[in-house]
Amino acid sequence: MTRMDGRSEEQLREVRIDIDFVDNPAGSALIQMGRTKVLCTASLSDSVPAFLRGAERGWVTAEYSLLPGSTDTRTDREAARGRPSGRSMEIQRLIGRSLRAVVDMQALGERAVYVDCDVLQADGGTRTAAITGGYVALAAACRRLQETGLVREQPLVDSVAAVSVGIVDGQVLLDLPYSEDSRAEVDLNVVQTGSGRLVEVQGTAERGTFDRSQLDELLDSAEKGIAELTRIQREVLGA
Amino acid sequence: MTRMDGRSEEQLREVRIDIDFVDNPAGSALIQMGRTKVLCTASLSDSVPAFLRGAERGWVTAEYSLLPGSTDTRTDREAARGRPSGRSMEIQRLIGRSLRAVVDMQALGERAVYVDCDVLQADGGTRTAAITGGYVALAAACRRLQETGLVREQPLVDSVAAVSVGIVDGQVLLDLPYSEDSRAEVDLNVVQTGSGRLVEVQGTAERGTFDRSQLDELLDSAEKGIAELTRIQREVLGA
Amino acid sequence: MTRMDGRSEEQLREVRIDIDFVDNPAGSALIQMGRTKVLCTASLSDSVPAFLRGAERGWVTAEYSLLPGSTDTRTDREAARGRPSGRSMEIQRLIGRSLRAVVDMQALGERAVYVDCDVLQADGGTRTAAITGGYVALAAACRRLQETGLVREQPLVDSVAAVSVGIVDGQVLLDLPYSEDSRAEVDLNVVQTGSGRLVEVQGTAERGTFDRSQLDELLDSAEKGIAELTRIQREVLGA
Amino acid sequence: MTRMDGRSEEQLREVRIDIDFVDNPAGSALIQMGRTKVLCTASLSDSVPAFLRGAERGWVTAEYSLLPGSTDTRTDREAARGRPSGRSMEIQRLIGRSLRAVVDMQALGERAVYVDCDVLQADGGTRTAAITGGYVALAAACRRLQETGLVREQPLVDSVAAVSVGIVDGQVLLDLPYSEDSRAEVDLNVVQTGSGRLVEVQGTAERGTFDRSQLDELLDSAEKGIAELTRIQREVLGA
Amino acid sequence: MTRMDGRSEEQLREVRIDIDFVDNPAGSALIQMGRTKVLCTASLSDSVPAFLRGAERGWVTAEYSLLPGSTDTRTDREAARGRPSGRSMEIQRLIGRSLRAVVDMQALGERAVYVDCDVLQADGGTRTAAITGGYVALAAACRRLQETGLVREQPLVDSVAAVSVGIVDGQVLLDLPYSEDSRAEVDLNVVQTGSGRLVEVQGTAERGTFDRSQLDELLDSAEKGIAELTRIQREVLGA
Amino acid sequence: MTRMDGRSEEQLREVRIDIDFVDNPAGSALIQMGRTKVLCTASLSDSVPAFLRGAERGWVTAEYSLLPGSTDTRTDREAARGRPSGRSMEIQRLIGRSLRAVVDMQALGERAVYVDCDVLQADGGTRTAAITGGYVALAAACRRLQETGLVREQPLVDSVAAVSVGIVDGQVLLDLPYSEDSRAEVDLNVVQTGSGRLVEVQGTAERGTFDRSQLDELLDSAEKGIAELTRIQREVLGA
Repeated sequence: MTRMDGRSEEQLREVRIDIDFVDNPAGSALIQMGRTKVLCTASLSDSVPAFLRGAERGWVTAEYSLLPGSTDTRTDREAARGRPSGRSMEIQRLIGRSLRAVVDMQALGERAVYVDCDVLQADGGTRTAAITGGYVALAAACRRLQETGLVREQPLVDSVAAVSVGIVDGQVLLDLPYSEDSRAEVDLNVVQTGSGRLVEVQGTAERGTFDRSQLDELLDSAEKGIAELTRIQREVLGA
Repeated sequence: MTRMDGRSEEQLREVRIDIDFVDNPAGSALIQMGRTKVLCTASLSDSVPAFLRGAERGWVTAEYSLLPGSTDTRTDREAARGRPSGRSMEIQRLIGRSLRAVVDMQALGERAVYVDCDVLQADGGTRTAAITGGYVALAAACRRLQETGLVREQPLVDSVAAVSVGIVDGQVLLDLPYSEDSRAEVDLNVVQTGSGRLVEVQGTAERGTFDRSQLDELLDSAEKGIAELTRIQREVLGA
Repeated sequence: MTRMDGRSEEQLREVRIDIDFVDNPAGSALIQMGRTKVLCTASLSDSVPAFLRGAERGWVTAEYSLLPGSTDTRTDREAARGRPSGRSMEIQRLIGRSLRAVVDMQALGERAVYVDCDVLQADGGTRTAAITGGYVALAAACRRLQETGLVREQPLVDSVAAVSVGIVDGQVLLDLPYSEDSRAEVDLNVVQTGSGRLVEVQGTAERGTFDRSQLDELLDSAEKGIAELTRIQREVLGA
Repeated sequence: MTRMDGRSEEQLREVRIDIDFVDNPAGSALIQMGRTKVLCTASLSDSVPAFLRGAERGWVTAEYSLLPGSTDTRTDREAARGRPSGRSMEIQRLIGRSLRAVVDMQALGERAVYVDCDVLQADGGTRTAAITGGYVALAAACRRLQETGLVREQPLVDSVAAVSVGIVDGQVLLDLPYSEDSRAEVDLNVVQTGSGRLVEVQGTAERGTFDRSQLDELLDSAEKGIAELTRIQREVLGA
Repeated sequence: MTRMDGRSEEQLREVRIDIDFVDNPAGSALIQMGRTKVLCTASLSDSVPAFLRGAERGWVTAEYSLLPGSTDTRTDREAARGRPSGRSMEIQRLIGRSLRAVVDMQALGERAVYVDCDVLQADGGTRTAAITGGYVALAAACRRLQETGLVREQPLVDSVAAVSVGIVDGQVLLDLPYSEDSRAEVDLNVVQTGSGRLVEVQGTAERGTFDRSQLDELLDSAEKGIAELTRIQREVLGA
Repeated sequence: MTRMDGRSEEQLREVRIDIDFVDNPAGSALIQMGRTKVLCTASLSDSVPAFLRGAERGWVTAEYSLLPGSTDTRTDREAARGRPSGRSMEIQRLIGRSLRAVVDMQALGERAVYVDCDVLQADGGTRTAAITGGYVALAAACRRLQETGLVREQPLVDSVAAVSVGIVDGQVLLDLPYSEDSRAEVDLNVVQTGSGRLVEVQGTAERGTFDRSQLDELLDSAEKGIAELTRIQREVLGA
């Protein structure tokens, strides 16, 4: 079977990462996976959350939002509704946890990094693109911290990337665009480090259920996709 | 190794489910897993969300909240802060998806069921207890629907239960209380049907990372716990 | 005349108070008056409101909420609406004033006690049950403060309890369940100390008006009910 | 004893009611009791609350707010804080119930009257002034309804007025300004109809407690004050 | 052409300013321009915004609101909607900038002045009336600051007033009431100092567009109106 | 005098407009003026505001926001604060009025166009860039409406563009970047149609004041800038 966009089952969409797309924040990256476009910025702040004050440890937090014009039907602005949607909050918590998994908070020092992921165009896989692109923005910010002497050691202990996989019509497919995602039986988001360790595994069956062997197939496919994304991240960062 | 509370690694805490703890809503259950106590109620409403109007299909939605006095240090009331916390929203979305996985929405008819899960006492595993207890409340409500002739067929196509497993000091442990959960390297919540199919798998490593073989061990342990919870649900429901 | 539930006009519903129903907060009580069930917890905090900082005096504040499944038709969660309802705010202000009336704030020391009253099942008289049960939770918390040496003197100078009385079809009735309350001509909530002094008198006529002699009859009936509630509070507290 | 402002214990402050102070709404009155100034307006709306739609009955609702410059120390604007304070909500519920007690909702017809009470200057007794002035605004609006033929029968079945009384240094005092109110042992707000029937009795002891004989003295004093306010209302309305 | 209310094209409505209409705040003025009535108060606060702390400079900020009963059809209270409307925020920012233009912040010292402008009756030109009346309240407050020795030098370096002009049916008209404003092709608000310098020029064409020569005519007309308002301000302030 | 970035006083920054930068909405444009980057999208909706329902007329509304990473110091997300800032609301009202000035609402038909302007990078002049770019997005959307036969006549009756001018150190400068804007004595935003008519003139002096001859100089400079922007808009739209 080939897919609507001509890809094979285990092939990523075309990936493009423009580092330093904007230059006010310490780091930034515009990531495109097919038609999905997410602008990720990493801004530094001297003040950490209350529970870390004085602990000489840093913090990394993420925020996620869909721009109103990013979706086929316009998405109401969350500021107009008075609060982030449940979906946005769930996603930004996932991004934050994923990025924190590869940061040495002591090396980061008592400062916070805000990684903002704003979706300019949504076509499936925005949360995983945000993690992959958010890592690049974060790495650029950490590099700047080192170059300016604000940290002595590199705070990043590994890289991290993410991809979605799903079962559509019984078939395991990698990196689902909206047209596939919206009719998937099972949807699995996998977050993995550059060294191949799992950070997050979030599998959901809104339509039907799944068994252990299907879970294994999904994880195998995701692993290959993430290896490819890791390679691209390294290339972009010139590392 | 025995655990602080004397349990073996693969043993659940003491489980108790009081069905019909309150009787204004169509169904209710007070579930206790060790010191964790969650009151689950299932209330019927004639109005479904806008996207389902006229579709002759039903909907199941969940809400979750910690009572202020449920935690060791008092938790601020979400109404005082003006909105549910990100954590609450993430959890209630999980509960909702889990319960919907076992409901035939056509058989339910054009009505909504609100499953409210309010934590009276929190000692770890509140979200999984909410799913297990929420299913009992939902089943009681569905039974009432059938008894009163409001639905012809049973809307429930399976049962569903959930449990948390984690890796603590390198050891896979089932059903973590707060004292274990707060120092776990990996935390996995598994939602499974009575017939043994997976509905949700949410694994998170805030402290360290994990590999595929560890994931397998965690899933094995969860499966046993859920089988036991399914047995208790059946007993309570007299099914 | 006997009442729908077989009680005489001056008889309380069956009262039951389970002290220490949950044990994370410093004190707690589950009070049941007939079908009305309110969980009251008293949590300690080291920080007092701004206007008391440095004054070496304490503070007692109350919050009140209906759980969504506590009512016949589900009550929307206040966090979803973004703020407590006017009714909840009015009630929690009443509970707070009532409890403060029996506390020696100097003896309490510079700390705050939050008394949270969450209605698990509502069948009339929830605000007065919250005061009666809230006092028990507060007394348990104060006892713990004394046992652990955090206060030297007992901060409670008296006990306090409350009851509703009303005029239904021209008849003065004590302790109205919802079925009576919803068609009462006059509704009076009385808060009184264990030593028989008035703390709050709130009489309202939404349907008709009342005169001084009716007010006197209502106060007489309430006084008897409160004497009985005071006796039960003492028993429960082993005082 | 004479009081700081030279009044006797049972004397009202100087009362002045300017009817039609503004003329966009159907009725309005600026009431002054001593230095307390409250602008009351009664606006008509064709849409009643949902629970009354189609019932051919009207509704009267009240809103209350302190203007920021009305108090000695500026009061933050409630729109800036995002919601009315608990105090405002409690007060506006009281005003609404008080006014509804003298309205025949069937005669009013399926329409709503909003009585807005905005305090221009606060010096104690603002909630009772709002009721007394709000009645005048409501009466002016009802007169306009009758003059324009929108209602056939007069919707007002009685008049209503309110006053505060308190115990200060053991002495019962009528119509407390802020300087007395802030050190009162007991504070009682009484709402009474022109025909002398009680509508609301709200007695509160934040400082100390009170007994039945003190309550009687307070009610006696309030009754005299309300009789005088009723006389002024009639004069102003030319009734 | 004469206008509906008999004025000539370049004539202001009847202006009346009652200084010290309320006396809790440091300064106040009730300004009336025709039927438009705005209560302006100037309250002092010891705390300046964060960005000025320690800078030994003051701040002047303004807030603006329509009372619900000020408009023909009742305006919903902004506290009920949870936030000020966009229109209110735009207007209060304009008032604040206008007043700050004539204040020497160093002479004011590290304190804030809140100028609250609450519209009691709206009939066009409320924002410009708020500026003209707000200046009087501010001047009264500054005078009190000087009289009580809190400032050494007069913080006001000039006076400021504002007026609206518009083009209606091709004709330039000064000081538009609502009936003219609602059908104006162009609407221009001009803020000018007593010494004749421009502070703000806000011209808007929602219906059609305008050219430079029309803009000049509008500015000429506004200049004359503001000269007259300046004269009245001086008279009221006895300066 | 040359300016920091080498421009002459009457020269625009480098302008670049990428039409169709995203393609989910009906029209879009990424506009860059120097370092300022604003993504403008125009989304169609079938539902107009309540006051236009059934009137067979359309509506154009705008929303504006700074992305958190767009500014030197991160800007808090408005959804986190619960509402748009006053500045954002003032700006989006200006954008909306400006765009509506060139739309024939009858030709547009009963539909709404939402023009969303999200600032990706802020370096002064974001509101005027949003108008200039917003027009391009709107024109692209209107073209699509015509191509798909949804409207018969072109709803745009003219083009519209905007620029800021200011007085810095006594000198009139066109198109201020942040470094100039932050120390300007006077700041004027001018919105003008392609045919040279004024739509909005907003001049503000937070630092000092200005006179009529300065206003004239500013308007002259703006006019030249807008003529150049109009030329670029036409080129981009291939008109």
